[in-house]
Amino acid sequence: MNIEMIKAASQRLQGHLLETPLLQSDSLNEIAGRRIFIKAENLQKTGSFKARGAWSAISSLTQEALKKGVVAASSGNHAQGIAFSSKYHNTRALVFMPSNAPETKIRQTIALGAEVQFYDRAAELGSKLAKQHSTETGMTLINPFDDAQVIAGQGTIGLELARQIQHLKVDATEVLVCCGGGGLTAGIALALESEMPHIQCRTVEPVGFDDSARSIANGSIQENSRTDGSICDSLLTLRPGELTFPIVKRLCGPGLTINEQECLKAMSLAFTHLKIVLEPGGAIALAAALFYGDLLNTNDVIVTASGGNVDRSLFQKMLKDYG
Amino acid sequence: MNIEMIKAASQRLQGHLLETPLLQSDSLNEIAGRRIFIKAENLQKTGSFKARGAWSAISSLTQEALKKGVVAASSGNHAQGIAFSSKYHNTRALVFMPSNAPETKIRQTIALGAEVQFYDRAAELGSKLAKQHSTETGMTLINPFDDAQVIAGQGTIGLELARQIQHLKVDATEVLVCCGGGGLTAGIALALESEMPHIQCRTVEPVGFDDSARSIANGSIQENSRTDGSICDSLLTLRPGELTFPIVKRLCGPGLTINEQECLKAMSLAFTHLKIVLEPGGAIALAAALFYGDLLNTNDVIVTASGGNVDRSLFQKMLKDYG
Repeated sequence: MNIEMIKAASQRLQGHLLETPLLQSDSLNEIAGRRIFIKAENLQKTGSFKARGAWSAISSLTQEALKKGVVAASSGNHAQGIAFSSKYHNTRALVFMPSNAPETKIRQTIALGAEVQFYDRAAELGSKLAKQHSTETGMTLINPFDDAQVIAGQGTIGLELARQIQHLKVDATEVLVCCGGGGLTAGIALALESEMPHIQCRTVEPVGFDDSARSIANGSIQENSRTDGSICDSLLTLRPGELTFPIVKRLCGPGLTINEQECLKAMSLAFTHLKIVLEPGGAIALAAALFYGDLLNTNDVIVTASGGNVDRSLFQKMLKDYG
Repeated sequence: MNIEMIKAASQRLQGHLLETPLLQSDSLNEIAGRRIFIKAENLQKTGSFKARGAWSAISSLTQEALKKGVVAASSGNHAQGIAFSSKYHNTRALVFMPSNAPETKIRQTIALGAEVQFYDRAAELGSKLAKQHSTETGMTLINPFDDAQVIAGQGTIGLELARQIQHLKVDATEVLVCCGGGGLTAGIALALESEMPHIQCRTVEPVGFDDSARSIANGSIQENSRTDGSICDSLLTLRPGELTFPIVKRLCGPGLTINEQECLKAMSLAFTHLKIVLEPGGAIALAAALFYGDLLNTNDVIVTASGGNVDRSLFQKMLKDYG
């Protein structure tokens, strides 16, 4: 993994995926007590940053591999990224999705042309099912975070950030990143190490799924006790990756942990002041900036808003409960 | 009015307002049968493009005028733009708002520090009240559309569009613009006349408030029969402006007219596929692109998504009814 891989991925993404904006709101700045710059990856094609990693991985496959197809496991953001990228590259995609994944994620993944197989998230590991299927069929496994080309794809956000930060004169030394397996964090951290080394990434995770924060604190990989049971469906990995953790450990500051109510409150404030739709896991870094400012060591702060694939029933309830 | 005023406004806006992104969604493209590029001005500070015109006008006032303050009439987007810009320029702002304006617009206008006076939209004209108050007090009247510096501010969107279109290789000859008094349409049309003269603007208005479409067709200013009674609160002007109409007449193609259900449907599709929050009037150009493609004469089409200041009760109802 190096910056050249990220720059090469950026070339492959050009013209297919969007450069997302860095949003601002004076009202949110007042709440936070500092300026917040929001990298709005919910506005990315397929509604999350995952399209970058998936495109990066699939666009680097050989013709022979493309003929056999790809397989992945995902609660729906990586799934949509895989489906979207596979469609363009004319390859078959099979995705293992938890049966309790958000409806909108299941519907869009299928609409984009992927085959979906469901599993019980509380009882089984999607990653195991996908790996087994790959071994049996020869289809290429595309891990949602522990894959060098996926990390390189997510790292393209770091390249964009570096350009945008310079242009907007942002005075930040910390980027808060919504964190599951650490692919987004590792990618951005690697890009910034090269382009803006004074800026450090920090992971933000849901209470009960703080494997990265504990792993960073311990200096070794720690597991969560479960992989189900949070509205932040996109962040519920068992543990940091073998590829991502060494990068995260070397480059990132202490992790932050946020509860579900704070995610919903951040979604509500994003609706009111940013006019964007966020899913709970996609709002978690914004929640940290808004409600845990005393834990930050930065003037301005940058946050990733990583996805907006949320069921309308949950969004309606959030609007009602957090008005 | 000329391109130099727009370029000068762009300089004054720099660093204070955002360059908004041009969003895309393959799913929306499929519905429309062509590529749609969405200029997402709902992501602008204050939640609509109106902050550009207000900033442009207030930043061009003399110190003496700033001491006396500014006055305006608006259902809430121009109001927030005026409040936001006045706060920064340390000037007093008074805004006449319809008593039935969306709650969120009233709340945010007050939160930004403006004084608000309410009037009955069905019985009185806010523009008359504001003009009268200006005459009595010497406060500068800032018309929401019929003001050269306001038009210049909205025109900065046209400058951004020209750069973005070139960069993204958009093959469009038509831009659909959400239209009330025509300030946004005139501004963009003037900017494109200079920067990309092969691209024409077309107005999009609510059924029953199609004064611009009828004025363009007739070649002379036509009035609406009422100024109240649509969920597109931001587009309910009595008639095109004295400054805006000659520009619109000279540069724009035939106007389009959309009903409320189509606006709500476009808001719902924007929630699902773009992850943005639009108000009804802000979704009207997108609705035209999605549902009236046979009336367009362009390959790709560009639409403005002009604002996202919508009450959460209406947004909840839309999510429920148009799922």
